[in-house]
Amino acid sequence: MMRARVPLLLLLGILFLASLSVSFGIVHREHHESREEVSVSSGKNNPFYFNSDRWFRTLYRNEWGHIRVLQRFDQRSKQMQNLENYRVVEFQSKPNTLLLPHHADADFLLVVLSGKAVLTLVNPDGRDSNILEQGHAQKIPAGTTFFLVNPDDNENLRIIKLAVPVNNPHRFQDFFLSSTEAQQSYLQGFSKNILEASFDSDIKEINRVLFGEEGQQQQGQESQQEGVIVELKREQIRELIRHAKSNSKKALSSQNEPFNLRNQKPVYSNRFGRLHEITPEKNPQLRDLDVFLSSVDIKEGGLLMPNYNSKAIVILVVNEGEANIELVGLKEQQQQQQEENWEVHRYSAELSEDDVFVIPAAYPVAINATSNMNFLAFGINAENNQRNFLAGEKDNVISEIPTEVLDLAFPAPGEKVVKLINKQSLSYFVDAQPQQKEERSKGRKGPLSSILDTLY
Amino acid sequence: MMRARVPLLLLLGILFLASLSVSFGIVHREHHESREEVSVSSGKNNPFYFNSDRWFRTLYRNEWGHIRVLQRFDQRSKQMQNLENYRVVEFQSKPNTLLLPHHADADFLLVVLSGKAVLTLVNPDGRDSNILEQGHAQKIPAGTTFFLVNPDDNENLRIIKLAVPVNNPHRFQDFFLSSTEAQQSYLQGFSKNILEASFDSDIKEINRVLFGEEGQQQQGQESQQEGVIVELKREQIRELIRHAKSNSKKALSSQNEPFNLRNQKPVYSNRFGRLHEITPEKNPQLRDLDVFLSSVDIKEGGLLMPNYNSKAIVILVVNEGEANIELVGLKEQQQQQQEENWEVHRYSAELSEDDVFVIPAAYPVAINATSNMNFLAFGINAENNQRNFLAGEKDNVISEIPTEVLDLAFPAPGEKVVKLINKQSLSYFVDAQPQQKEERSKGRKGPLSSILDTLY
Amino acid sequence: MMRARVPLLLLLGILFLASLSVSFGIVHREHHESREEVSVSSGKNNPFYFNSDRWFRTLYRNEWGHIRVLQRFDQRSKQMQNLENYRVVEFQSKPNTLLLPHHADADFLLVVLSGKAVLTLVNPDGRDSNILEQGHAQKIPAGTTFFLVNPDDNENLRIIKLAVPVNNPHRFQDFFLSSTEAQQSYLQGFSKNILEASFDSDIKEINRVLFGEEGQQQQGQESQQEGVIVELKREQIRELIRHAKSNSKKALSSQNEPFNLRNQKPVYSNRFGRLHEITPEKNPQLRDLDVFLSSVDIKEGGLLMPNYNSKAIVILVVNEGEANIELVGLKEQQQQQQEENWEVHRYSAELSEDDVFVIPAAYPVAINATSNMNFLAFGINAENNQRNFLAGEKDNVISEIPTEVLDLAFPAPGEKVVKLINKQSLSYFVDAQPQQKEERSKGRKGPLSSILDTLY
Repeated sequence: MMRARVPLLLLLGILFLASLSVSFGIVHREHHESREEVSVSSGKNNPFYFNSDRWFRTLYRNEWGHIRVLQRFDQRSKQMQNLENYRVVEFQSKPNTLLLPHHADADFLLVVLSGKAVLTLVNPDGRDSNILEQGHAQKIPAGTTFFLVNPDDNENLRIIKLAVPVNNPHRFQDFFLSSTEAQQSYLQGFSKNILEASFDSDIKEINRVLFGEEGQQQQGQESQQEGVIVELKREQIRELIRHAKSNSKKALSSQNEPFNLRNQKPVYSNRFGRLHEITPEKNPQLRDLDVFLSSVDIKEGGLLMPNYNSKAIVILVVNEGEANIELVGLKEQQQQQQEENWEVHRYSAELSEDDVFVIPAAYPVAINATSNMNFLAFGINAENNQRNFLAGEKDNVISEIPTEVLDLAFPAPGEKVVKLINKQSLSYFVDAQPQQKEERSKGRKGPLSSILDTLY
Repeated sequence: MMRARVPLLLLLGILFLASLSVSFGIVHREHHESREEVSVSSGKNNPFYFNSDRWFRTLYRNEWGHIRVLQRFDQRSKQMQNLENYRVVEFQSKPNTLLLPHHADADFLLVVLSGKAVLTLVNPDGRDSNILEQGHAQKIPAGTTFFLVNPDDNENLRIIKLAVPVNNPHRFQDFFLSSTEAQQSYLQGFSKNILEASFDSDIKEINRVLFGEEGQQQQGQESQQEGVIVELKREQIRELIRHAKSNSKKALSSQNEPFNLRNQKPVYSNRFGRLHEITPEKNPQLRDLDVFLSSVDIKEGGLLMPNYNSKAIVILVVNEGEANIELVGLKEQQQQQQEENWEVHRYSAELSEDDVFVIPAAYPVAINATSNMNFLAFGINAENNQRNFLAGEKDNVISEIPTEVLDLAFPAPGEKVVKLINKQSLSYFVDAQPQQKEERSKGRKGPLSSILDTLY
Repeated sequence: MMRARVPLLLLLGILFLASLSVSFGIVHREHHESREEVSVSSGKNNPFYFNSDRWFRTLYRNEWGHIRVLQRFDQRSKQMQNLENYRVVEFQSKPNTLLLPHHADADFLLVVLSGKAVLTLVNPDGRDSNILEQGHAQKIPAGTTFFLVNPDDNENLRIIKLAVPVNNPHRFQDFFLSSTEAQQSYLQGFSKNILEASFDSDIKEINRVLFGEEGQQQQGQESQQEGVIVELKREQIRELIRHAKSNSKKALSSQNEPFNLRNQKPVYSNRFGRLHEITPEKNPQLRDLDVFLSSVDIKEGGLLMPNYNSKAIVILVVNEGEANIELVGLKEQQQQQQEENWEVHRYSAELSEDDVFVIPAAYPVAINATSNMNFLAFGINAENNQRNFLAGEKDNVISEIPTEVLDLAFPAPGEKVVKLINKQSLSYFVDAQPQQKEERSKGRKGPLSSILDTLY
């Protein structure tokens, strides 16, 4: 009996591996018209796509909100191994709530996706309170104690944090100051003697005031909070907001203050979309992290044209709306005579709210909005990054190649290639279905498109 | 027979793994008075504690001294993975001895724990000799040939080096210039032809002068040293000391000279203890390594109050005396519904001479001296690090949190919390057993405590 | 049957491991004259030696040239683990050829070994074309589209690139703009809809102009190139060269232009050899990469004397000629009582054209040219690196050690050691067989050596 078990386990293992390679390895091949076929990975076979429902792990959740962390990038695919020091955290809280004071062993770059926040950083020599709105960002240096209020009466607060852990490349922990039913205060980790000497008080008094005595809750007098996100009364919010600074007027900021991604002139803008961006060269908080931050709006039916980042690895977070994304990479293919062959491979996904997508440096990408959409992008390794467009009038790297080389590289004569490349007169954002739209717009120009034209 | 062996080996493996999880997994739970219980790891179950007897590996040892290296931090626990590029080396030598000339493929930050040293760095364009005493530190850049004299007639020399290897994250090697019975000269690695051409001499002459001929020792004429630490005569020491510069007067220093940790004003000081510190901002040698260096004295019965470093990972080395240390971390606990729960966990240890303890960034820590004690601390990732105290009058981060938030966070009303936090009127260092001391001091004020009062 | 297979497989595995340890573990011991024996690794047992035929992997090859990449350094030996972010690429092309436009997810430092190149970098806002000759170097930033012409009518172009990947420590990929029979255009990875919208054209037109229609080749009209290296006509070269800048006159350069390793005064030079070097301190492109670049010529029978780099890890590439290299390291030997013993170990190799050899920081090395030879060296971690010679008159670190210490370190009295060290009156490069040469030159001074004397 025992002798048989081992081969059986091995056999099961082999079957399990085989089934894995089936479930993860399925790619289909697309063969449109006269072109060569291209292999495509989509949905869960696409390692750059992190579906919000599947790839976030909940750290805390109660009726007032939640904190979730995205799985490690480097564990998903070796092609993202240089993201191993970065994690993505999502936080949501209901109106009139407080995330209790805590600190973490990671630097955070916090961005407000929607709603309003009062963020207070506490240092041994004082505190700094700021009101942040959609598109505002602020660095929270590692080890800084902070708390976060959603002061709004109606709107949920949604926040994304890029985390750069300190003690370990990919793990970090939140140290909460006070005890709740879900969570112990880190002060509770110290022994009676140390607490008594530190607070110059009897342990009974310390327990009563800081940790809550046993049997307290039965008496209903003083009680622990249920979790780390708690409800606030309006008077409490008013008090907390009183000393906070409003930052709605500032575009770029000094060392320690929030900065506003959207209050500046967009880098690219037309009636199909616009891109706001702050680079490390422009902001000291981003320079410390070597990160750029972008916010991109694309109108329904708009296309962010094919482009690639020269050296930045982009972590894209969908704030609202939906889009199809196509990322082009190369897939290794072992050949007979030891030589390798790299085949073009498309990684596609249908993005929706809170999904995350990684765009490696130098990989071409295009995004087609299927509804009005907005996404946020963290660009890692951002200093001196250059965005290269592959179509459109401006910043088009192909149009800078001399005709003689285009002539040699492409099957058609150089002048035909130049004509094709220069045909598109728009830049950055275009209509994803120009033929159909023309037909539609021949019929009538509806009120929505008029409004859009006004906005941009 | 053979068929049976494989399952048996597997079974033994499983039993071995099970026994490991028992021997490393034991933690006890402390349940004092009314507070919730806290899990505790102490002694060898505490991965942050490196007992001197157990975790140092001897590289060289003879009757005149020894060189030991601490095991890798990252192999002990993932919580210290970002220390993977750092090693700790301990060196001790008897009075009137010399550590022979050598170089290594690592940057060293050398600190004298006790005794006196003459450190000579040799470069192709000259040499630089300095006298170092307790608390003096100096960077030895990778590849620099150096030798080290203990010029004292009575006292042992004790040195700690932080090593940052160059070729490999965690390995480095010492290349000795001359041959001893324990060790070959690296020059001996070259072939006859290369040595003859390089020294423009016959190999017999080279062997005689540099490596020692076979049969030499029988003749008793010219002989190899027994090991890399050798005895010196007083005249030899006098000669070597003649050109050395004394650095006892300098506090901070220029690029290439030793600097004195203890000749400056302490950052914190009272009658229970004091802390000297030099940060990267103040010293170019430390800036290169992004390390801070501290020396902390605590009087018997004194307590360094609970505090955490915002971003520095601290490697603490006990120079003399004994203490209890409590470090507070979080321990992951898998729960039913995929959600995680982080439980507060205490890592405690009884520290004595030459023990090493790692304090990860953001982890609260408190140290209670059970005898007069001194320790040295290397702070890794030190630039802009901030020490946050959790009790005491000054630099207390909790006292900067607004009353309304304390009110919400803690079970007692805000004003009671504020009163508790502000009760301790001392800062940084306090009496670890105030009640007992008061009782004792009511009896009589002894001569020892009077002396201590005078010293601080 | 099935029960037997598992132990058999295990047994085969054990035999395989045993055979590996035999084939890789063989070292012989050299015992010359009176000195202690030294263990030696040579040929394929030497992990620092990368034979050109064995360790390069071909990425592309056709009748006009090839691209090859060296295996990973960190996979060969842990002693080179800190080279894990670096790869070496070799490119060769025949006269009158073009390497088609592409970009990669890696920074490149390109050096011309022999021949002439026109290197054109293309950015969204323009292009920059330069003529590079032997010893010219230029950084190609990650993500920059470039193409490379060999404009010469007769000579092959040989190039070495140091690659520093962006998305993953050790992998990078080349993205080609156009399709060939061997390779798809990355544009082909996008779907029909995105291509049509981006180029504002019908997919049939796009296929015809950019990718080549099926059945095209039968018709023989417009056709794809066979591979990524293509032949050029002289008129095409003349056109491409017209706007290129010649850099033959420049020694050091501004941010984005090629710089010439050999147009400066050599750092060391005599009749046996010379060394040109550009350090990060002198060139912004090298400062970005923290790399130094050297070109070393050694005459047949010349010896680059024993020396070590204080902190730079050197990747040596043989450009032409042959030499014997000896590298001295330490080999760990486990001893009985847990103490370790480090034995001197020689890593030797016979180098010839296109071979690669790694010299770890702090490891002594000597190179003996067996024909006139030239090699190129990339020094990684180069800032403030110091080269320490171990023999010869200048930059000799041993001659800076005080006599009293030499006296204690070596078996012979100090003055004898000093006499031996100072006997060699040349520096850096010497005659590898002085005795034999003297005898020979007594006979007659031949025409070759006269020419050599004139050259240096």
